[in-house]
Amino acid sequence: MRPLTVSDLNPAILKVQYAVRGELAIKAEELREKLQTDSHGLPFKKVISSNIGNPQQKGLDQPYLTFTRQVAALMEYPPLAELVKGKWPQDVLDRAKELQEEIGSIGAYSHSKGVPLIRKHVAQFIQERDGYPSDPEDIFLTAGASAGVSLILNVLITPNVTGVLIPIPQYPLYTATLAQYSGVALPYHLSEPEGWSTSLDEIQSALAKAEKEGVKPRALVVINPGNPTGAILDKSTMQNLVKLCEEHSLVLLADEVYQANLHRPDTHPFHSFKQVVREMKSPIPLFSFHSISKGVKGECGRRGGYFECTNISDEVRALLYKMASVSLCPPLSGQIGVDCLVRPPRPNDPSYPLWKRETDTIHDALRQRTQLMAQRLNALPGVSCVDSPGALYLYPKLELPDKAVEEARKLGKQPDELYALQLLEETGICVVPGSGFGQKDGEHHYRLTCLCPGVEEYVSALENFHLKFLEKYGGL
Amino acid sequence: MRPLTVSDLNPAILKVQYAVRGELAIKAEELREKLQTDSHGLPFKKVISSNIGNPQQKGLDQPYLTFTRQVAALMEYPPLAELVKGKWPQDVLDRAKELQEEIGSIGAYSHSKGVPLIRKHVAQFIQERDGYPSDPEDIFLTAGASAGVSLILNVLITPNVTGVLIPIPQYPLYTATLAQYSGVALPYHLSEPEGWSTSLDEIQSALAKAEKEGVKPRALVVINPGNPTGAILDKSTMQNLVKLCEEHSLVLLADEVYQANLHRPDTHPFHSFKQVVREMKSPIPLFSFHSISKGVKGECGRRGGYFECTNISDEVRALLYKMASVSLCPPLSGQIGVDCLVRPPRPNDPSYPLWKRETDTIHDALRQRTQLMAQRLNALPGVSCVDSPGALYLYPKLELPDKAVEEARKLGKQPDELYALQLLEETGICVVPGSGFGQKDGEHHYRLTCLCPGVEEYVSALENFHLKFLEKYGGL
Repeated sequence: MRPLTVSDLNPAILKVQYAVRGELAIKAEELREKLQTDSHGLPFKKVISSNIGNPQQKGLDQPYLTFTRQVAALMEYPPLAELVKGKWPQDVLDRAKELQEEIGSIGAYSHSKGVPLIRKHVAQFIQERDGYPSDPEDIFLTAGASAGVSLILNVLITPNVTGVLIPIPQYPLYTATLAQYSGVALPYHLSEPEGWSTSLDEIQSALAKAEKEGVKPRALVVINPGNPTGAILDKSTMQNLVKLCEEHSLVLLADEVYQANLHRPDTHPFHSFKQVVREMKSPIPLFSFHSISKGVKGECGRRGGYFECTNISDEVRALLYKMASVSLCPPLSGQIGVDCLVRPPRPNDPSYPLWKRETDTIHDALRQRTQLMAQRLNALPGVSCVDSPGALYLYPKLELPDKAVEEARKLGKQPDELYALQLLEETGICVVPGSGFGQKDGEHHYRLTCLCPGVEEYVSALENFHLKFLEKYGGL
Repeated sequence: MRPLTVSDLNPAILKVQYAVRGELAIKAEELREKLQTDSHGLPFKKVISSNIGNPQQKGLDQPYLTFTRQVAALMEYPPLAELVKGKWPQDVLDRAKELQEEIGSIGAYSHSKGVPLIRKHVAQFIQERDGYPSDPEDIFLTAGASAGVSLILNVLITPNVTGVLIPIPQYPLYTATLAQYSGVALPYHLSEPEGWSTSLDEIQSALAKAEKEGVKPRALVVINPGNPTGAILDKSTMQNLVKLCEEHSLVLLADEVYQANLHRPDTHPFHSFKQVVREMKSPIPLFSFHSISKGVKGECGRRGGYFECTNISDEVRALLYKMASVSLCPPLSGQIGVDCLVRPPRPNDPSYPLWKRETDTIHDALRQRTQLMAQRLNALPGVSCVDSPGALYLYPKLELPDKAVEEARKLGKQPDELYALQLLEETGICVVPGSGFGQKDGEHHYRLTCLCPGVEEYVSALENFHLKFLEKYGGL
């Protein structure tokens, strides 16, 4: 018997990288365990996971929305309705009853595309958002947006042939999934000086390069609002991107999971690609992704989301349905979360006042924290930071002293990895180095979430660490 | 702009077939909708989905276990504890509190391998079951067993090179996933005359054939208890299979999701491969899969399960962890389901009497239905049916009249597809034709679940249809 070694495995899998839960996150877990011991000797009291947009995790503790959870509790145990009648708002009871009658038990597999009634509600939500019709048959509920992206990329990619345009910096789900399915990543750089805007020229050069290398570009990934950048596309850029897809016969993958995380909606509103495609009467194939993990819901653990197919033929859709069938169905808890996302309480519903208060509080806190953190980071020497108008993150750029770059080189690490590792070891704050998202050669960044509740203390820790780091490596 | 057509897509995806939710299931959906109309003109009142092991679905309505659902409802909405105190059993409240303290909010991503405490409970369950230790670090919680199988196959398969031995008949997840990842299926036939037993000779010939064709056999899939066959392996066969894996350096994939569905445990007990491997002190790499969707829980909609790694190096395990990270985490509702599966109420717990009654009822009903259906099917001309000692299915063999075979040929269908299609159209009963699971040339089968509550009426419908079918095609 020869033991199973890594060299026996699928070589594509070896190439997968996913920094959001990579070395830093594993190190953070170890430190968290060490903190439990009396003689840990660490210079901080808790580990703060700013590496991942996970609002409800311990230590961040963004509250859940009561409406969603009451509906879900009733779905878990329907006889509860008797007990809470008159105690919980009537619209909660009505919603649970309506879903119950449609679904039956949440312990049963649903339709592989998701519960038909919930897909109908998603279509209504999209129609209300965009002013254009949406067909429930074009909606696929998924176990979060990631599962949808993975399905679509798997279906679109002919191994070692198909190229997919991805923004740099990007959410590493894309590079990881491309590596998994042996697709060819065609990176296009976003422009940091213009607030991480998307440049058509950059995409054109990536296409030209692909052609030279014999790669077939098949799809364009756009993340809007951006991750890790927080940038929001204006409509004319979106129109140009749609035209570019038309010219090059590209499928557009619109990752719109942060569509409800808008910090300055008056100056930086969100437009969906579905709306722009319909306005332009464009024939481009479009997959739009949404999720219950972000926004103000932050229900990551339920694993819920959906994608909408626009300009996708029945034949291709049937094939997606077949693949969805193999994994049976998305979790019902996520599907119920989607229903509550797309049908929140309305102004005259008994649940509305509480729901409004809860969502306003979360929006306000995120906006204020993002602004404050950006301001304070920008005031530091060697740090510049686009003040994100959307999403959950900041992506500050670091000018690191030569000595630090040199030391990183010696350790076989990226300079921003060195920075992030020391930040974790000295403050307990876990961020993701920019090298995990992609950046121009010689540049250094890190991504951190704007989810920490005690923001004053948190920012001070970041500041103190940064100044000490500069001092240590002769950058002050 | 060229529209996106199927010929643009990943060719591997086109080859995927999944009959359990294939043409018949889609047709059943259509009939279910048609039944809603007044003038449907159909000769039956309801569609019965016997095509899929989905116990809690509408129409089958296997009840959920109260303990699981009460714990889950409390996790959804923790303030509920105040309301149900003194009304719900104290062990339910204690369990929810314990999980709550460990997990925090179920709206947060957990560790990508699953909540550490729940993995510890899984390891304790395995140790109690097998008498050998289990390490929580070897446990990966998953979104049902299918997600685990898919992950392991994706990691093991080098496209177009790696061969995987699969039983015929098999649960089509295996052929579908092999097609998806361009693995080479190496089929070995189970022996129907010996109650669908597993023959070493069959596997040896499949290995010889693979060698001749230049395919590298890497893994052996065993489904025990069998799906669709319901067969249960005896220990000496298991020992021989382990030895065979040693000789040929094969990874063993043990699909043990029906381990709690035993109809005659005295004569047909279940042994886990983990136990056999440990008893033999064998070094073979083993992945064992379990699920909350089957057994008496039948919590398909939660999407919960786990796999255990045995004799897997730290390096390979780290790679599995990396891949689990890309999809973030299994649904928390499924993870809570796993905790309740592996830590059911104990004899002195307040929840125990109800739990015992509920589980006994489900076990008894399944056993009785399986036996009755097998008896009645065996009494029909042209039908022979192994009386399954386990799992949720029967897999009767059909001797079909030449005229029926001829008609199927003309329609471009398999003869058992023709049979299943007519069964659906005339009785509303949806089964899966044997061609979806694999069978010897010229043989015909179908798989049906033993989950229907009104079994007498159900079996009569099967009988009447069968006799009419034989008459129609001159087989009587």
